Amino acid sequence: MMTKVQLQEHEMPRSWYNLAADLPNPVPPPLGGDGQPIKPEQLAAVFPMNLIEQEVSGERWIDIPQEVLEILYRWRPSPLHRAYGLEKALKTPARIYYKNEGVSPAGSHKPNTAVPQAYYNKIAGIEKLTTETGAGQWGSALSFACSQFGLECKVFMVRSSYEHKPYRKHLMQTWGGKCVPSPSTQTKAGRDILAAHPDSPGSLGIAISEAVEEAVSDPSGKTKYALGSVLNHVMLHQTLIGLEAKKQLAIFGEKKVDQIIACAGGGSNFAGLSFPFLADKMAGADIEIIPVEPSSCPSLTRGKYSYDLGDVAGMTPYLPMYTLGHSFIPHAMHAGGLRYHGMAPLVSQALREGLLNPSAVPQLECFKAAVLFARSEY
Amino acid sequence: MMTKVQLQEHEMPRSWYNLAADLPNPVPPPLGGDGQPIKPEQLAAVFPMNLIEQEVSGERWIDIPQEVLEILYRWRPSPLHRAYGLEKALKTPARIYYKNEGVSPAGSHKPNTAVPQAYYNKIAGIEKLTTETGAGQWGSALSFACSQFGLECKVFMVRSSYEHKPYRKHLMQTWGGKCVPSPSTQTKAGRDILAAHPDSPGSLGIAISEAVEEAVSDPSGKTKYALGSVLNHVMLHQTLIGLEAKKQLAIFGEKKVDQIIACAGGGSNFAGLSFPFLADKMAGADIEIIPVEPSSCPSLTRGKYSYDLGDVAGMTPYLPMYTLGHSFIPHAMHAGGLRYHGMAPLVSQALREGLLNPSAVPQLECFKAAVLFARSEY
Repeated sequence: MMTKVQLQEHEMPRSWYNLAADLPNPVPPPLGGDGQPIKPEQLAAVFPMNLIEQEVSGERWIDIPQEVLEILYRWRPSPLHRAYGLEKALKTPARIYYKNEGVSPAGSHKPNTAVPQAYYNKIAGIEKLTTETGAGQWGSALSFACSQFGLECKVFMVRSSYEHKPYRKHLMQTWGGKCVPSPSTQTKAGRDILAAHPDSPGSLGIAISEAVEEAVSDPSGKTKYALGSVLNHVMLHQTLIGLEAKKQLAIFGEKKVDQIIACAGGGSNFAGLSFPFLADKMAGADIEIIPVEPSSCPSLTRGKYSYDLGDVAGMTPYLPMYTLGHSFIPHAMHAGGLRYHGMAPLVSQALREGLLNPSAVPQLECFKAAVLFARSEY
Repeated sequence: MMTKVQLQEHEMPRSWYNLAADLPNPVPPPLGGDGQPIKPEQLAAVFPMNLIEQEVSGERWIDIPQEVLEILYRWRPSPLHRAYGLEKALKTPARIYYKNEGVSPAGSHKPNTAVPQAYYNKIAGIEKLTTETGAGQWGSALSFACSQFGLECKVFMVRSSYEHKPYRKHLMQTWGGKCVPSPSTQTKAGRDILAAHPDSPGSLGIAISEAVEEAVSDPSGKTKYALGSVLNHVMLHQTLIGLEAKKQLAIFGEKKVDQIIACAGGGSNFAGLSFPFLADKMAGADIEIIPVEPSSCPSLTRGKYSYDLGDVAGMTPYLPMYTLGHSFIPHAMHAGGLRYHGMAPLVSQALREGLLNPSAVPQLECFKAAVLFARSEY
């Protein structure tokens, strides 16, 4: 009986998979406030050009730099487990597998993109990164990645999570990151929100506004912003998850995959696992691909497809996506990482193409399933 | 460049290594209150006979049951990493490796023994386990293990840690464990301590008294006690760590090990890594073996070798060990897992034989090193 497949470092994919190369119709371009497509150069105040090139790339495969591989090897390839215990608990004849991204330093899939983002900024001469974080997974992942390349890191953390999850702040500090609750008084965006809503629990959209503002206001130009989900290059970096899983399923002897299921907040975890399987689906494979989102923040199942801002204060371009509206603030809830109003443009486009079967789950049902999983598996 | 060695499941050792078989002089037997050696049957109120047999075994190798292997496979073999980042940060020519037990469900090495202990209790007909926990690692590990075999689990958690680390309680509850702060009002031992010291921060010695009392007072005999360190069978189960590490170092191409370093609280983490290397040392290999303990709880470096109780209230036999005295209560500190007055008899005996070079480190120096490790490695 084989419980999990653990690939060796030399078996890890050497390139990321870019879904944009294969979608039947391209993702519409981001637009500026004037309704005109944003030119790559216009993003240069926020991101370094090497990441902007990845953001707009149409290449199917993009090589992973050796310096990035060497950091990713600390925990990758991650194991793929056969969920024997869960299958038994569910009394199902299905063969269930799960990819365990919890083995990363920050405990989630987020370092998969934090490390290349820190690397590309470093080689572009950047000295400091700003970002937002919900539950703290992304903020701690970026703090880890920045510590590896000697970059400063400042994290605006959604206030409700900052208060509920103090340990995540300590983790960021351990890796040298600075963490402040958002909305904060350190940016105009934060002060404006606090003036209108002094008790604001915050949201990812607000925290993004603050982080972008802090990056673009550095007159030296040596501060950039890093986003943990939503953007094309973030989806790209996460595809290692699905690329590894395909190899691992083959070693398990699986010839056909029936369903791919992943949680979807901004979209990067879902994209990471599913995009390599979406490629097979577009090539004719019969696979059902299911993003699962919180029913309290249901962008894919109840959102509207339209151009919308990525943040609250209008610091970002308009992105084409399923959205609940950029001023949407979900009720305070435990799943703080998923408090985002929009869905990644690449994931949104895949839904428009009829390639996805999204589903929304209420918080308590989700917790119940998580407890079953913990007791039967991990 | 190879960053880590990840063994496959079929490469995991199939037997535990028992140091007792190879020590030049045997560990003196535990004694009862009358000064006479305890007979195995006398431990039967606390532990099932199959674990007592392991506790007193002189066999060098003890087979791991298949049912235990199948749970351990969820995270084992654990990776052995070459610490390239730390070596660079330290500017050392040494080649440093670390064994990553953080990939386990509970995040520490503790499930390595929690799983076999739950298994042996289960097949002995036991329905409930009680235990103590310091920082919460052992309590969560045993909660996980009990959930795998359908056993109830009750954990007495050292109060200072219970208050500092509330998330560990949630983890135990997720796995179905019950967690109460110790000293509690639920046992005579706890009530006696609270009467004398209403603000007691607790200690492992107190929590052990409470857990043993609750186990032995169940008239059905279906409740037993499980200990996360100190005892011979716990050391035994942890030797997978060192047995795997030896195989992994060989794959890295290392022909000679110069030093083995591990932290030592009750002794099980240290024993797990070092005992297989101690076997080599006793066979003539030139290896320095260094247990590192907190200078605020320095049983190996400043304790006295003598027979002492394992707990505060005298629920346990007298064990031969380096001890600070069973009523020792360290100052409140962050490293709650190490708040124990004595050192495992097998580790203590190895020190008496001149096989170990223990060292004690103050809290802040230890934290500083941990931050350096986090920023350069994980």
